[in-house]
Amino acid sequence: MRMYGNWRSAAAFRVRIALKLKGIPYEETFIDLDAGDQHRPEFRAINPQGAVPALFDGEGPPLTQSLAILDYLEETHPSVPLLPADPRERARVRSLAQVVACDTHPLYVPRVRNHLMGAYDLPRDRMMDFVRHAFATGLTALEARLSTEPGTGRYAQGDRLSHADLCLASLWVGTAIFDVPTDAYPTVRRIAEECLSQPAFMEAHPKRQPGAPA
Amino acid sequence: MRMYGNWRSAAAFRVRIALKLKGIPYEETFIDLDAGDQHRPEFRAINPQGAVPALFDGEGPPLTQSLAILDYLEETHPSVPLLPADPRERARVRSLAQVVACDTHPLYVPRVRNHLMGAYDLPRDRMMDFVRHAFATGLTALEARLSTEPGTGRYAQGDRLSHADLCLASLWVGTAIFDVPTDAYPTVRRIAEECLSQPAFMEAHPKRQPGAPA
Repeated sequence: MRMYGNWRSAAAFRVRIALKLKGIPYEETFIDLDAGDQHRPEFRAINPQGAVPALFDGEGPPLTQSLAILDYLEETHPSVPLLPADPRERARVRSLAQVVACDTHPLYVPRVRNHLMGAYDLPRDRMMDFVRHAFATGLTALEARLSTEPGTGRYAQGDRLSHADLCLASLWVGTAIFDVPTDAYPTVRRIAEECLSQPAFMEAHPKRQPGAPA
Repeated sequence: MRMYGNWRSAAAFRVRIALKLKGIPYEETFIDLDAGDQHRPEFRAINPQGAVPALFDGEGPPLTQSLAILDYLEETHPSVPLLPADPRERARVRSLAQVVACDTHPLYVPRVRNHLMGAYDLPRDRMMDFVRHAFATGLTALEARLSTEPGTGRYAQGDRLSHADLCLASLWVGTAIFDVPTDAYPTVRRIAEECLSQPAFMEAHPKRQPGAPA
């Protein structure tokens, strides 16, 4: 497979972890979001939305949106499952994943940060307050659920890795990139550190990708 | 089933349409988001995130996050399918749904609107510029994809209703609620109007729910 990604992208990180956990060979092409490469015609022809990741599996059209890609990989490469078999457990995994991928991450992507600074004349530190508020809201929701719901185990859902963990880890890595305080989220921290100590997560980590600062 | 929802919620609308299309009986309890009922302890005990919809199916724990609920309903009530059988087509449906449910809708929910007005002293009309920008970005992405990708048919994916249409319709209805210009999105309009003329969509429509303005 071929993925168009970016070292810092939380969405690309999630997909990269799944590819590695499932043992799917892939190559990644770096899209420089800071330079605006996602808006160039060559990339808009791949994803008119101008967002990473975009994944090519053979000759088919590009696959976009990280959660849609995770489900596609699950359906086409089920041998290392990243969703439980039980519908209620699958729903809980997806719900936790969506707290990150729907309610939190879209609030701090480059296009929103740039819009806040451009349209509202916000200096960078005031814009970053918005980013940190988004992180805090999402992390608070995750902590409230993971620390009380009986489904939580070694990982977000029981003792097997799932899409929820991939999303959780992608959010956790962002707390370092965006300097977000994390003391209030011990359950999220425990699960994130459990995940990030494993080879697939380490190899997929933003810091280890092309384009990342040394 | 029992759903906790709100007349205006785009996420509750999506789930309501799926319940009606699949013929699943349900009752809905109105959560007054403007009055802050989602933050009361009684509702936080149901969903610590303080967001609708939350769906109870029998005695199990509440199901949350609209896309997770749609997948749960698909897995437990497959007889009126709202996802295609082919993995690539499923991925396209989910990707289009996520343009709405991940990249667009979370930017204009009450908690974000209130945060912008509170933390940044934005008057309502300046905050509404942020909302309209979010709609315009999402609608532009949908129009670019739906008007060019060969998968588009009578509906977002071919000639059968899918999760993509439920999300698209929920966004389209929001353009009226939030006074968003729509002339630039003829393909989105065509599909939305095709959907919204059907009984399940009409019965599930925000305007027809308890709590909606007369």
